[in-house]
Amino acid sequence: MAENYAHSVQQVAAKGATLHTFSSPQRDKLQQLLPSLQAHYQQPLVLMSRQILARQVARFQAALPTIAPHFAVKANPHPDVLRCLMEAGTGFEVASKAELDQLLAMGVQASKVFYSNPVKSPHYIAYAASMGVEWFALDSVEELEKIHRIAPAAKLYLRIYTSNKGSSIELSAKFGASREDVSAVIARAAALGADLAGVTFHVGSQCCNVDNWRLGIERSAEIFGEMHRAGLEPRLLDLGGGYPVSIDQAAPSLELIAQVIHSALQPLLVEFGNITVIAEPGRFLVAEAGLFVCQVVAASRRDQQNWLYLDAGFYGGLLEIKEGLEYPITTLASGPEQSWVLAGPTCDSIDICSDQYRLPASLQAGDWVMVGCAGAYSNACACEFNGFPLPKVVME
Amino acid sequence: MAENYAHSVQQVAAKGATLHTFSSPQRDKLQQLLPSLQAHYQQPLVLMSRQILARQVARFQAALPTIAPHFAVKANPHPDVLRCLMEAGTGFEVASKAELDQLLAMGVQASKVFYSNPVKSPHYIAYAASMGVEWFALDSVEELEKIHRIAPAAKLYLRIYTSNKGSSIELSAKFGASREDVSAVIARAAALGADLAGVTFHVGSQCCNVDNWRLGIERSAEIFGEMHRAGLEPRLLDLGGGYPVSIDQAAPSLELIAQVIHSALQPLLVEFGNITVIAEPGRFLVAEAGLFVCQVVAASRRDQQNWLYLDAGFYGGLLEIKEGLEYPITTLASGPEQSWVLAGPTCDSIDICSDQYRLPASLQAGDWVMVGCAGAYSNACACEFNGFPLPKVVME
Repeated sequence: MAENYAHSVQQVAAKGATLHTFSSPQRDKLQQLLPSLQAHYQQPLVLMSRQILARQVARFQAALPTIAPHFAVKANPHPDVLRCLMEAGTGFEVASKAELDQLLAMGVQASKVFYSNPVKSPHYIAYAASMGVEWFALDSVEELEKIHRIAPAAKLYLRIYTSNKGSSIELSAKFGASREDVSAVIARAAALGADLAGVTFHVGSQCCNVDNWRLGIERSAEIFGEMHRAGLEPRLLDLGGGYPVSIDQAAPSLELIAQVIHSALQPLLVEFGNITVIAEPGRFLVAEAGLFVCQVVAASRRDQQNWLYLDAGFYGGLLEIKEGLEYPITTLASGPEQSWVLAGPTCDSIDICSDQYRLPASLQAGDWVMVGCAGAYSNACACEFNGFPLPKVVME
Repeated sequence: MAENYAHSVQQVAAKGATLHTFSSPQRDKLQQLLPSLQAHYQQPLVLMSRQILARQVARFQAALPTIAPHFAVKANPHPDVLRCLMEAGTGFEVASKAELDQLLAMGVQASKVFYSNPVKSPHYIAYAASMGVEWFALDSVEELEKIHRIAPAAKLYLRIYTSNKGSSIELSAKFGASREDVSAVIARAAALGADLAGVTFHVGSQCCNVDNWRLGIERSAEIFGEMHRAGLEPRLLDLGGGYPVSIDQAAPSLELIAQVIHSALQPLLVEFGNITVIAEPGRFLVAEAGLFVCQVVAASRRDQQNWLYLDAGFYGGLLEIKEGLEYPITTLASGPEQSWVLAGPTCDSIDICSDQYRLPASLQAGDWVMVGCAGAYSNACACEFNGFPLPKVVME
């Protein structure tokens, strides 16, 4: 496994992937916005670019033309973002009733919505099925029995464990059936006559190890075989999310990942024929489209450290910086740089995001701070703790 | 320090402090609520008891009769909670403009509101001063200069570093001026003619080491002396928050803490005369008044572990369980117990709260779960990530 990972990192380097950096147009945009910000600013903004959203969907469709992208709503549930992605041709993946309701209100067909959260309230299952959702994920015998009891006609797909090595945020600790559990679920589905008809896996969020997809697909093929032998009719493979963007390290390009996926899929499709393959990109479709604009609340020196307090932090939309993803940050200030401890505005000591940033020493209260690549898991994860307002999403 | 801590733990044991446990009335209440929950439940509830809120205020006032409690709004900003505390006679402490606005709308006098967040946006300072807030905290020369520039008549109090040893959540990493910084702030205040007129410290959240208060008060007395020598007129001592409740370990009683505070204050009051002493209890006033009621989404066995997924977790109001506070949890189920991994309902692997709980093995989807002592930092910290609704606060 370690060798495979090293190999894929080498491949990335060979492809010349570059880190996300601030472009001139982004800085120009902020310069244009300044008068309006100075006059009307009330709260942090997530500026979302329609153009980049559409570009990312097109890029996904070009790299993986036979694989339908179903946007993971959790990454950015703002209505304008969802509408833009729907218009660009994506389906959707939901984790809850509220996410489903939002999509239905927009006119999304329920049959294009996959309920991929492996654990679901009984009344959420009943509601989704009554509205026309066809596919439901699970990763345990108990969830299989629950869904089948509530919605016997539901099509079910099994979330399996797969390697998350090389991913920024591992998801395999919480979800995914082990080998032993897979056999138990298949046997139970066959006994119940439940339509267990697909397999899904998640390689981990921000996955930089392309081998995770290969291994997941190879394991899925084995499970398809096991399903067939049990008398089930597998016809869905859901490749999940994890398609990375280059935030703080060079990530493998989607095109490179697509090559690995296509070659791993080849034998599976030959063996099992008519399989629908979908994917659930979240971050990949929205991250680069988002520019988080916030303001310095205070810049101070305490105990021989430089502290930069922003009006958003762990609670206000920058949770992932705290989780170790070093988002690109820039300002309009100039001059020599120094190391800053970056913190949010609340009274809570958890609300320290990082001590890694080098930014101009001249920064002071009122200056603007831009966080790049921030269209995913920013407004989606924010709360109003300490009375600080949620970031406002503005589509451009 | 270690000896002092051991000593205070011994004292606690001697006083016979007991852990928070579920009372019969709480279980009875839930039994009474069951028909309504079964029929109307939409989202987790925080059931807040007016009676316990009033009891806690009275207890604080009885133990510390010369020290005015100013509730830390961040602990539970629900309007009904704030109104109940106001009626019971507390002042308030705020961290932001929104918190202040809420209090003003309720008719709280601005002069009873302390702005204790040591870092504040320039426009928040201007707004608070214009509305009549008199006292503003700071912990750096930069914040002193900023407040004095915007609101020259403001009364200022200096947040100093103090030991957080023995506290569940340390706050001294983010705020508090060191010895060196204290001298710099005092000198700058004297030079500017700023009314630096008080000292505050925070012993850490859920502080179980009573010596932290003694040390903080002794250090404050030293700083009062330094302020006098610089020509300033100190007249406020703010003892901050940190007053614990017994969540997962026996905490020192407020009455014990009050003894330590009173004897440490004695020489300070003799030396400096007319000093107003306030405190900022947050958790202490609201935690025990809150019962968090939520529902099991799924109970499953995966990879030889028992998983109990609730409809609220790290994102939905139970953040502090994830942070290591083992809240008391009970259910109406019976029978033999087993170990459960407790997780929230989202697709995120961060959303695993604990693997420490022993609860009945018979638990299944739809069962009710009660988290005790949950009136602080529950609804206050919740967000709607993955489309799960915020907990609803119900006052009784």
